[in-house]
Amino acid sequence: MPDQLGQALPAPLFKSVALIGLGLIGSSIARAAKHKNLAGRIVAIDNNPDVAARVRELALADSVETDAALGVRDCDLVILCAPVGANVAIAQQIAASLTPGVILSDVGSVKTAVVRDVSPYLPEGAHFIPAHPVAGTEQSGPDAGFATLFMNRWCILTPPFGTSPEAVDRLRAFWEMIGANVEIMSPEHHDRVLAITSHIPHLIAYNIVGTAADLEEVTQSEVMKFSAGGFRDFTRIAASDPTMWRDIFLNNKEAVLEILGRFQEDLFSLQRAIRWGEGDKLFDLFTRTRAIRRGIVEQGQETAAPDFGRTRPES
Amino acid sequence: MPDQLGQALPAPLFKSVALIGLGLIGSSIARAAKHKNLAGRIVAIDNNPDVAARVRELALADSVETDAALGVRDCDLVILCAPVGANVAIAQQIAASLTPGVILSDVGSVKTAVVRDVSPYLPEGAHFIPAHPVAGTEQSGPDAGFATLFMNRWCILTPPFGTSPEAVDRLRAFWEMIGANVEIMSPEHHDRVLAITSHIPHLIAYNIVGTAADLEEVTQSEVMKFSAGGFRDFTRIAASDPTMWRDIFLNNKEAVLEILGRFQEDLFSLQRAIRWGEGDKLFDLFTRTRAIRRGIVEQGQETAAPDFGRTRPES
Repeated sequence: MPDQLGQALPAPLFKSVALIGLGLIGSSIARAAKHKNLAGRIVAIDNNPDVAARVRELALADSVETDAALGVRDCDLVILCAPVGANVAIAQQIAASLTPGVILSDVGSVKTAVVRDVSPYLPEGAHFIPAHPVAGTEQSGPDAGFATLFMNRWCILTPPFGTSPEAVDRLRAFWEMIGANVEIMSPEHHDRVLAITSHIPHLIAYNIVGTAADLEEVTQSEVMKFSAGGFRDFTRIAASDPTMWRDIFLNNKEAVLEILGRFQEDLFSLQRAIRWGEGDKLFDLFTRTRAIRRGIVEQGQETAAPDFGRTRPES
Repeated sequence: MPDQLGQALPAPLFKSVALIGLGLIGSSIARAAKHKNLAGRIVAIDNNPDVAARVRELALADSVETDAALGVRDCDLVILCAPVGANVAIAQQIAASLTPGVILSDVGSVKTAVVRDVSPYLPEGAHFIPAHPVAGTEQSGPDAGFATLFMNRWCILTPPFGTSPEAVDRLRAFWEMIGANVEIMSPEHHDRVLAITSHIPHLIAYNIVGTAADLEEVTQSEVMKFSAGGFRDFTRIAASDPTMWRDIFLNNKEAVLEILGRFQEDLFSLQRAIRWGEGDKLFDLFTRTRAIRRGIVEQGQETAAPDFGRTRPES
């Protein structure tokens, strides 16, 4: 179509994109896809009528549906953005309505489970390419999303063996055009990488906030007051969406339990070093861990500002 | 003394303040005390000649010494700002040079140990009032400090039984004038409160970064790339000064081991819930932890901006 200057705009990458679940991630994809003109039409689908109404108010999509089977019709890209535990039900609902040649994807934090759960319902001619944008904040819902959430973040694709390379390239282009770097790996490897970089960190953050809440000899008011010593950083992560995180742990059980076992082993070793006053052992670990921080900052995955820039020096 | 308009400026709270150890905290106190005119004279003492030279370059004090015994002469406030493990040696060095009536304080993160280590060397007529400003960043050294570090943070005083109330009031005034809120508690209670709000969070952050570094099946490069899923927050804390933190763990052994035991117990319970698929148990904890986050934000100890304000929405 010609724009105001009479020049032909490039056709959008997808004719019609359906997003199922308009939380932080789904609503950020809607905003980013609109901003970058990646979809001729965006269909927002959420079975929660309040969320659907809010998505309408925010004008995040061209149409808003509560019925997924209706919404996915004629779409050439469908992305599941609901909590991981909802995938089976959604796959059952939409399977018969998917258009031949459709790319079906998701944004979940576990990948072997989604392959296991969704594959049995895939109709002939659909390309199933699980995806995981490693980005987010502790906030939830359609108001929390924003178009730049995926800028310079990684998006991992885990296409099953035999997936059409053209379909993978189109999905890769979609993520790259909204700012992400794309990496491809197996679902199993993804689940181990994310167990250590995301799932275990969340589990121990939730755990320490729980431990703190249950202490008798230190009040909750004291825990809050003196949280600037380190604790408050954990509470941010422990404020993440409970349904999403319950589903992640239930669906990445093997990798989480295995790496949690190593974490526990290492923690017992530190505990023993403290009990026996082995200062050198503590010092060695505390020195070694700085290198990983530097690497993360150098790779642009973290701000170098002290204290995340929370404190702003005047002098 | 009259200022340029001929008005009498109020006399500074202390005649002469000695700061021993010019790291993040010591150099921040120097900056804040100067900014607020709380000291007629500031003496910076650091036994590391490089640090002393840098403090001179930065003009953080009226005089800079490497010899603590020389530096503390005629001072009415002396604050130990070196790592906790250095307290005994410093106390021995300065004891004979302290002026009668001096207030001797510190900024360490453990308080029973400093009372145990320093008290034996206190000369007659010195007021020993341990203090702990609960503030900091992951950075170290005299360049890392800034005058507003203590603004709206808590400073805990743990005066031993029988300490002069006037001396406590003067030290309280000092901290309040550089922006802190002051709370008084026993050293033992302090050490338990900080074990949960600061020491255990640091220990598990160091630990998970160590676990991640040692995995064979996930590379360090992958850990860095995909750290935005939660891990990177832990690396900030695990970039804190190794000497300082070694000393904290060696000197708050009892409280750390006790609360670490509870943390482990709770973590095993979560581990078991994951293994047996007890979703409700996970969901309940993940919901409960949000309230503590809200409290911390409401009390002004944390920013409410998502992701610590690291992501800046454009739309």
